[in-house]
Amino acid sequence: MQNFDYYNPTHIVFGKDRLAELDELVPKKSRVLVLYGGGSVKKFGTLEKVIQALPGREIIEFGGIEPNPKFTTLMKAVEVVKAQNVEFLLAVGGGSVMDGTKFVSLAANHDGDAQELLKCGFGPVPVEKAHPIGMVVTLPATGSEMNSGGVISHDGGKYVVGSPLVFPKFSILDPTLTYTLPGKQVANGVIDTFIHTVEQYVTFPVDGRFQDRTAEGILRTLLEIGQKTLENPTDYDARANLVWCATNALNGLICAGVPQDWTTHMIGHELTAMFGIDHAQTLAALQPSVWTVRKGPKREKLLQYAERVWDITEGDEAARIDLAIEKTRGFFESLGVSTRLRSYGVTDEKIDDIVTALEEHGLTALSETGEVTLEVSRKILEHAMGD
Amino acid sequence: MQNFDYYNPTHIVFGKDRLAELDELVPKKSRVLVLYGGGSVKKFGTLEKVIQALPGREIIEFGGIEPNPKFTTLMKAVEVVKAQNVEFLLAVGGGSVMDGTKFVSLAANHDGDAQELLKCGFGPVPVEKAHPIGMVVTLPATGSEMNSGGVISHDGGKYVVGSPLVFPKFSILDPTLTYTLPGKQVANGVIDTFIHTVEQYVTFPVDGRFQDRTAEGILRTLLEIGQKTLENPTDYDARANLVWCATNALNGLICAGVPQDWTTHMIGHELTAMFGIDHAQTLAALQPSVWTVRKGPKREKLLQYAERVWDITEGDEAARIDLAIEKTRGFFESLGVSTRLRSYGVTDEKIDDIVTALEEHGLTALSETGEVTLEVSRKILEHAMGD
Repeated sequence: MQNFDYYNPTHIVFGKDRLAELDELVPKKSRVLVLYGGGSVKKFGTLEKVIQALPGREIIEFGGIEPNPKFTTLMKAVEVVKAQNVEFLLAVGGGSVMDGTKFVSLAANHDGDAQELLKCGFGPVPVEKAHPIGMVVTLPATGSEMNSGGVISHDGGKYVVGSPLVFPKFSILDPTLTYTLPGKQVANGVIDTFIHTVEQYVTFPVDGRFQDRTAEGILRTLLEIGQKTLENPTDYDARANLVWCATNALNGLICAGVPQDWTTHMIGHELTAMFGIDHAQTLAALQPSVWTVRKGPKREKLLQYAERVWDITEGDEAARIDLAIEKTRGFFESLGVSTRLRSYGVTDEKIDDIVTALEEHGLTALSETGEVTLEVSRKILEHAMGD
Repeated sequence: MQNFDYYNPTHIVFGKDRLAELDELVPKKSRVLVLYGGGSVKKFGTLEKVIQALPGREIIEFGGIEPNPKFTTLMKAVEVVKAQNVEFLLAVGGGSVMDGTKFVSLAANHDGDAQELLKCGFGPVPVEKAHPIGMVVTLPATGSEMNSGGVISHDGGKYVVGSPLVFPKFSILDPTLTYTLPGKQVANGVIDTFIHTVEQYVTFPVDGRFQDRTAEGILRTLLEIGQKTLENPTDYDARANLVWCATNALNGLICAGVPQDWTTHMIGHELTAMFGIDHAQTLAALQPSVWTVRKGPKREKLLQYAERVWDITEGDEAARIDLAIEKTRGFFESLGVSTRLRSYGVTDEKIDDIVTALEEHGLTALSETGEVTLEVSRKILEHAMGD
């Protein structure tokens, strides 16, 4: 097992009918900026319930945070925070709203050009304090509700920004608030959770048994409840299991002490930035190809994945690995998500542009070993095109 | 899945050679009380390394915290904290030192008779603030390094005391610091971790899939590495897996959203208080009998446990359950820990006294359902005596 630090101070408030507890969770008499997305939280009444639960606070609303939240949009929220002396940020929505709110919290406390924050990657940000954040989660997928990072879009690129300062103080996870999600977003959430998990698990073995088995537990749960929660959105337990798995897939638990491979996410971000393909769709299309191209370095963990997640124990090693990859592809397709880039309108001649974008963003040595060069990324993309 | 809150702000510092980081973790120029137990941390040099890592602090030592830490001992530490204006508490040791340090932190900030704190159980304590705590863990077992509770002995009884105020700020978990433990303590640690896990898992099903699978992952890991880490204390990975499993078995993760049964611990506490039997020994002797007596209400989870932890899939339900219980007993015995109360010197005529002690301590409705009355506890004890 590798050395690690684990720290996660977010208070999770999970279950039915928890919104009223906002009154205890948000500081009394504070000025609260409520951030949200395209309006579904208004349409389905969540926003109204949130505001009703916060008597005595000065509530300011900031809607319109788009999927893949934009720097320019978020900077408008930063202006509101500064102009109105906002004291607390409350994100009501999914990953984009949560990620965006973290950025607003940091940028509102940063001197100078906030674009500087986009260059920090996983490193420290030049900010000493941040506005406290609370979250009401309406989409299970990104895990943003219990981690300290986010992904921000700007000028054709996607940028990771994070700091321990922006761990949410609390996140309310009421699975019933997700019942109204369109099926496509639920399928995307299942896939995003699945890929988060495998990127921290299908690497090389370091004898991290708790971590491996916890990851396998999330994956098996997704196989069991993915289709079910898509078909029966109001099945509480199925949805609750998706919500809690999504959180645990990216809260630092399963990556503590083991290698991580974010190849799929990093290449996927370029595809979203260039072609507007949904984040989870890019992941579904890339992951089988990442494994196919890198069967060698991932051999042991792919075999473990085949056995423990898919119960594949027959056949030689190569056959078991191939079958596990095919079954994974089949699972994504069963959720209605294509695993071929061509089906999203990407054409062969665009591969050069994608590789150039990776180079421009410094993504020339991806994966758990750093051996995914631009040439390897090209192979992955070529394979992911499909026939 | 049941509604739940999850909150755990402890910073875990895990791995080899992390002691030097104490200099960053403990406030500079502070007055630090270093608490420890019987002297093995002195004998093996851990205490010296800890103090060397803390230049510029005023270090005060408080040794002699016994196994099953006593209220009277801890109150002497409270006097030191008050008399010397101690600002930070650093526990160096195992569960007793860690639990005791939490109590010292609370009692030093409590007005009036500190015995009042022993009556609070799992409820809130009448304390507004507490001294910050750090921990250097030398024994993997209790999980105290990443939770907010402890067990204190006083006047023939054992009392649970806890508060979110005493979550450790940090805990250093360096598996190499545990290499010098006697085998008996390692075996006890494996069993304590095992029982913590099953008491949050073998209850009744509520469709908490992440929780169940994470619990099963801990149990399977213990089966794999229990014997190994006992026989090869310096096998780093085996020991690291024990250490990390012990922490995760009682940090709030696997109990979030599912029922809990602390029957074994509660009856076990009486046995330790009355006869001085090691905590883990009481658990090993009681757990098979708790399951045998309560096969009915635990039927579904015992079958799940049999299949997923022991790969038992053949035979009728009763046979599978019996085999899982026998295998569990065999695992404890394989670690050199007897599973029969008689072997610890408990005699049949003492059962009345034990039941009376349970009654005096209000433990008349134990378990996940509250149906373990004194009469059921008596049956469990009778069964646990052995032939």
